Amino acid sequence: MNYRMTAHLLGQILLVVAGFLLVPFIMSFCYAESGTPLAFGVTLASMAAIGIPLTVMRPKDTSINIKGGFITVALAWIVLSLFGAMPFAISGYFASYIDSLFEIVSGLTTTGATVLTDIEAVPSSLLFWRSFSHWIGGMGVLVFVIAVLPKSNNAIVHLAKAEIPGPQFGKLVSKLRFTARILYGIYILLTLIEVVALLICRMPVFDSFITAFSTAGTGGFSSNNNSIGGYNSLAIEIVTMVFMLLFSINMNVFYLLAIGRFKQAFKNEELWWLLVIVFVAIFLVSLSLTLGHVYETFGETLRYSSYQVIAFISTTGFGTANFDDWPVLAQTTLFVCMFIGGMAGSTAGGLKISRVITLVKSSGRSIKKSISPRTVVSVKIDGKSVDENVVKNILNYFALLMSIYFVSVILVSIIQEGMDFATAVTAVATCLNNVGPGLSKVAAGFGEINPFAKIIFIFDMLIGRLEIYPILLLFYPKSWKKY
Amino acid sequence: MNYRMTAHLLGQILLVVAGFLLVPFIMSFCYAESGTPLAFGVTLASMAAIGIPLTVMRPKDTSINIKGGFITVALAWIVLSLFGAMPFAISGYFASYIDSLFEIVSGLTTTGATVLTDIEAVPSSLLFWRSFSHWIGGMGVLVFVIAVLPKSNNAIVHLAKAEIPGPQFGKLVSKLRFTARILYGIYILLTLIEVVALLICRMPVFDSFITAFSTAGTGGFSSNNNSIGGYNSLAIEIVTMVFMLLFSINMNVFYLLAIGRFKQAFKNEELWWLLVIVFVAIFLVSLSLTLGHVYETFGETLRYSSYQVIAFISTTGFGTANFDDWPVLAQTTLFVCMFIGGMAGSTAGGLKISRVITLVKSSGRSIKKSISPRTVVSVKIDGKSVDENVVKNILNYFALLMSIYFVSVILVSIIQEGMDFATAVTAVATCLNNVGPGLSKVAAGFGEINPFAKIIFIFDMLIGRLEIYPILLLFYPKSWKKY
Repeated sequence: MNYRMTAHLLGQILLVVAGFLLVPFIMSFCYAESGTPLAFGVTLASMAAIGIPLTVMRPKDTSINIKGGFITVALAWIVLSLFGAMPFAISGYFASYIDSLFEIVSGLTTTGATVLTDIEAVPSSLLFWRSFSHWIGGMGVLVFVIAVLPKSNNAIVHLAKAEIPGPQFGKLVSKLRFTARILYGIYILLTLIEVVALLICRMPVFDSFITAFSTAGTGGFSSNNNSIGGYNSLAIEIVTMVFMLLFSINMNVFYLLAIGRFKQAFKNEELWWLLVIVFVAIFLVSLSLTLGHVYETFGETLRYSSYQVIAFISTTGFGTANFDDWPVLAQTTLFVCMFIGGMAGSTAGGLKISRVITLVKSSGRSIKKSISPRTVVSVKIDGKSVDENVVKNILNYFALLMSIYFVSVILVSIIQEGMDFATAVTAVATCLNNVGPGLSKVAAGFGEINPFAKIIFIFDMLIGRLEIYPILLLFYPKSWKKY
Repeated sequence: MNYRMTAHLLGQILLVVAGFLLVPFIMSFCYAESGTPLAFGVTLASMAAIGIPLTVMRPKDTSINIKGGFITVALAWIVLSLFGAMPFAISGYFASYIDSLFEIVSGLTTTGATVLTDIEAVPSSLLFWRSFSHWIGGMGVLVFVIAVLPKSNNAIVHLAKAEIPGPQFGKLVSKLRFTARILYGIYILLTLIEVVALLICRMPVFDSFITAFSTAGTGGFSSNNNSIGGYNSLAIEIVTMVFMLLFSINMNVFYLLAIGRFKQAFKNEELWWLLVIVFVAIFLVSLSLTLGHVYETFGETLRYSSYQVIAFISTTGFGTANFDDWPVLAQTTLFVCMFIGGMAGSTAGGLKISRVITLVKSSGRSIKKSISPRTVVSVKIDGKSVDENVVKNILNYFALLMSIYFVSVILVSIIQEGMDFATAVTAVATCLNNVGPGLSKVAAGFGEINPFAKIIFIFDMLIGRLEIYPILLLFYPKSWKKY
């Protein structure tokens, strides 16, 4: 570990996020809120007090190895969460610091699970910060630092590797800073288009920004107590649905479209699988709603089923219907969607479609291999053979994720005895896959959950967003060895 | 595929099982039952009518390759189930042929999930056949054929490979027939010891045999409506508990003990992990029952928690308590136990401890590998490096099992819309892992489940018992190619 360089980077990140925090800080004055200006002020002051000296102390050796990259990213997310929770805690609108920490981790990791029960009673500046954290966390803070700051050497590749979700099958362009800028450009542009579209649908200005931020990060925080369903507008539903789907797509696809390489953009197997899975899931949920006579018309059935499927597979978690009362097929389908998630290189959570395809192809191949063990068959994606080490990494990733899943379910059950089975099983799934809502007692929010269980969920959300390794490496003594 | 040899083997297997069926047939006369002598008679006649000609036609080429081995085993299990269900169906004590088929597949695969609601109303000969099928299926029918029949060439290794559960890390003795005989010897001896122990505990003679057969196969069918809990005897609980644990242990361990190699027997990492997992699970369930104030004394808590943990991890599924009303931690712990299962080379189902150890070690190693990709670290079991192909097979097996699990949960929810989430999730887990009971609507039995959902469960039970590949290969056209 190069401690000085890690500290220097943490300082820079603190200052960058402090810059983002200025927006809700100024907002709190504009709306003449009470309590929140102080809350944001104290937070900003503390971030500056620690961020400036760390940034000023430039290390001689600016190298970062893989180990250092993973640890720096994990530390950055934890430090940001600790500071980011401060406005919530100081303002007094959240019951405790743990609640505030849960909310900001849920925000930054783009989970969207909330501890609030009456969202509309919370001042606008805090609601803005909540959804803005989705937007920041969706693309990643370190990726932003790489994009913005002038000085950055090649070693920073390791930072990006640890923060960008999904297995990397190909590279967009070779220069990392250039890539980061393009990605952020597309991200900002799509977000603005969504804001405009929502304004056209007559959503209030403030809500349009909040909703666009939450969609872009595939987070799910809303400023409405009843999520998107609260607007009672088919137009708004369609806009958010389309953008949830767009933000589940690998950004590379948009880049390729932008530079006119249409053929290459659509020759993406992962994209087609995403569409197939969405289609099949909508069919299954519609079937379930029809058989259960939940809605009166087929139009309504299709409207609510397609919205909820896309909300879950994109891991956004917006709601327009009370899916906790839906029949079992709708629930199990949404449960499976949670684990699948969106495409690699998008802001969506879950396993990612590319991992799911690889798992299915590799385990399917093992059927053939069971009868002819010596045959060499490679797993192909986009017509190209996937390196066997990548396949094995994905198989291991899945085994590790499921181990963490089962252990978390038991840990959470130890702490929160009053839960039912469906709550325990879906609450962990929704946090680990960065979705947001679960079934039964966590269908509406995590307000009822006790503080110690919240700490487990905080870990699960971070593990899900950073894809396991950076967080687990924090507990591995060798990671901390100086070199 | 060598069709003639497969047909010849199927004939032999039919005759062997017809031999087993003679016991309940004779019994039905002794007990002067009405209906069952005819039911068993018709079944025996049909099995002979098909089995004798198939056995008599000896193929010139007696070779069987891997493919043929897998297909033969899968076909054998399906054919046996189809015939084995006949006594239930003809006797009229089961609502339909599908119900009868579910019951016998649940028996042969040692699952122990029943469609019956009033077990005690069913004639003794049928109850005997039900539990006897656990005993036959536990060790495997083909293994029995190999053990008993004089002529068998080396090709039969492939049959044993397809039927014996668990990844094979080592071989007991090199000669397969000798091995099969030793294993059956140990199996018969342990079963008889349990019968004697149960008789000493004053269990009725008939019930002692039934219970011992069900324990030996780690199945779970009981002749009592309230399972082992119905006997209200601590002594009987202790005996069945000890034997459930013994039958979750690899038979090799007993062989090594029998020939005096104590050191080698106890130097088995899988055995120690089994004990550790059982201990931890009992602790968690006891904690849950204590916090939930379920029982009045610590003695009762320990009694019911240890029984249920061992019943689930051994995948027997006997019950002494109403675990469906237990608090969430107890339920999630039992749910995880279902997936773990017993040791490889025992009659227990589930993933098997050795696979779980390998999955945990391999995915744990991937944490280290994430920061130093070029390091070569091997997964070690019993101090020896596990071949990387074996590791990869186990990772693929896990991915495939989970895929089948999720697909089954959705298929079952399509068919049985009235279920709740906990029922769907645990019913598939209990069938796929050959455990028996689940939560909510399948805690007592599968009587309420509709016939189409039962067909899915039948497949899941067979897939679980034969460890996926033989059953899936039936749907792979190349398996059927003649050579």
